Amino acid sequence: MPEGSPVNFADRLAEAVRRVGNPVVVGLDPVPSQFPPFIRDGHRPELPGRAAATVNFGMDLIDVVAPLVPALKLQAAYYEALGPEGMRALYVTAKHARDRGLIVIIDGKRNDIGPTASAYARAYLGEAQNEPPWPTDALTINPYLGGDGINPFLSAAQETGRGLFVLVRTSNPSAGDFQDLVCDGRPLYEHVAQRLAGWSEPFMGSCGYSAAGAVVGATYPEQLKVLRELMPRVWFLVPGYGAQGGKAADIAPAFDEQGLGGLVNNSRGLIYAHQRPEFAGLDWREAVARVVREMVDDLAAHTSSAALRTRPV
Amino acid sequence: MPEGSPVNFADRLAEAVRRVGNPVVVGLDPVPSQFPPFIRDGHRPELPGRAAATVNFGMDLIDVVAPLVPALKLQAAYYEALGPEGMRALYVTAKHARDRGLIVIIDGKRNDIGPTASAYARAYLGEAQNEPPWPTDALTINPYLGGDGINPFLSAAQETGRGLFVLVRTSNPSAGDFQDLVCDGRPLYEHVAQRLAGWSEPFMGSCGYSAAGAVVGATYPEQLKVLRELMPRVWFLVPGYGAQGGKAADIAPAFDEQGLGGLVNNSRGLIYAHQRPEFAGLDWREAVARVVREMVDDLAAHTSSAALRTRPV
Repeated sequence: MPEGSPVNFADRLAEAVRRVGNPVVVGLDPVPSQFPPFIRDGHRPELPGRAAATVNFGMDLIDVVAPLVPALKLQAAYYEALGPEGMRALYVTAKHARDRGLIVIIDGKRNDIGPTASAYARAYLGEAQNEPPWPTDALTINPYLGGDGINPFLSAAQETGRGLFVLVRTSNPSAGDFQDLVCDGRPLYEHVAQRLAGWSEPFMGSCGYSAAGAVVGATYPEQLKVLRELMPRVWFLVPGYGAQGGKAADIAPAFDEQGLGGLVNNSRGLIYAHQRPEFAGLDWREAVARVVREMVDDLAAHTSSAALRTRPV
Repeated sequence: MPEGSPVNFADRLAEAVRRVGNPVVVGLDPVPSQFPPFIRDGHRPELPGRAAATVNFGMDLIDVVAPLVPALKLQAAYYEALGPEGMRALYVTAKHARDRGLIVIIDGKRNDIGPTASAYARAYLGEAQNEPPWPTDALTINPYLGGDGINPFLSAAQETGRGLFVLVRTSNPSAGDFQDLVCDGRPLYEHVAQRLAGWSEPFMGSCGYSAAGAVVGATYPEQLKVLRELMPRVWFLVPGYGAQGGKAADIAPAFDEQGLGGLVNNSRGLIYAHQRPEFAGLDWREAVARVVREMVDDLAAHTSSAALRTRPV
């Protein structure tokens, strides 16, 4: 590695996962009406109502989960839904998460033609000499525009030690409308996987995985297995566990025998734990911590992520 | 139409196109290093350097083109590349464009699973009783996630008299990586077109077109022709004219005999007209106005958009 080169994102991710001993990504999908009432109704003077409550909720949540998990995924849509103040809230929240040592993934599913993809890459992954204007470690990307819409993100990731996760198979009910269409004998998502396996190859870290990862839903377990075979050296960011119905056993093929290679996201199931009847009266932060630990245990019981726990800390 | 229902977006678009007599969309891809020097180096006190220059450039550009064209397309990526101040600049610029009577399209190519797509729809298209937090008339959408990632935008568009443009065939060199894969005997983009034709059907305006439109690149003329047959009642937003190599004649099939049905975007070729050697010494705003008129004439000479000019104003 040339002097001054940044550490490969895949290696930073592996280190973060090993440090806490689990592959859980807390998904921050902030919906003000779902916040604990005293946060929903509170405010910070510098931001209008809902954006302020969103910052407060995110900051407190980050303080709870930072010691427990390797990464936080911020869903851009919920911040954008609050207008320009929401984007300020996204900035402040992402910065706090990085300051607390979490790997920060902005889930923006961005995509465009080459020159415009370069602008998105500068926005979220930065350039050689410049930190990105948004405090981030990785961005999710939609592949519909093909290679020249992906390349600018790969270059930026390489230059700045950041990463990307390309949508391969999503977790939603209509994912198959186009992703399952069979082209030349195999479904579209396998074509995307095959191309991503190639694109990711030059960006391998010493952990054996690439800085270019894949989004692969937990809700289609058979497909996850096939996709792991097609992309053996790509980190999988797996949405769909929990509220969307994905089970820990379904996700097992994402992991190697060391417990690496998979990241499992849970959003609503973790951050709104205070709404569970059995947690009535409990401090909402304690409720979050309990369900995070539940999820860690569930994954450890059904996947090789348990291997992470046997490592010296 | 029930009392109080908003005017269908397709009809608003038709009215705007007829009013000015052309289908040109000015694409605002603000890159500060490309601005005329006195704007690049100027500033507004309330915004840091590049974001302020971006607002100044956009505002002046809007004042030039508002009497000449029906619509402005703001490329979100270039605003996002300036961080939170850039998003404030996007807001201010989009608002100014709407205030000046332009149809405003935010080119964000947003996409996500259902509940998150709803958040994007609220952000850019609003809800029945609420203006969206971003001053917009329409948003571009990526279809990779299928129907449940599109439906929230359709509902919002219907409720608020706004619109969407779904990527079908993009204008970039690697568009074919996935869009051209042949599935069940026809390329992927035709499958997307066929689904979009169905999705758009319940949202027809009285002009004969739907509030749900399609992005169809000018750089693949044969495909544009086929797509017009597959989607006869869908507005085409056509990128790729000018800098990307698309010619007016290539775009002709987008238009019906009244000159409606097509919108032709040009970004770099219009907004950075001051860089043309023959315009040296000319006020940059005059340079923009001249190339806009050139483009209007070029389209009129090679497409049925000339029919718009024969209408009484």
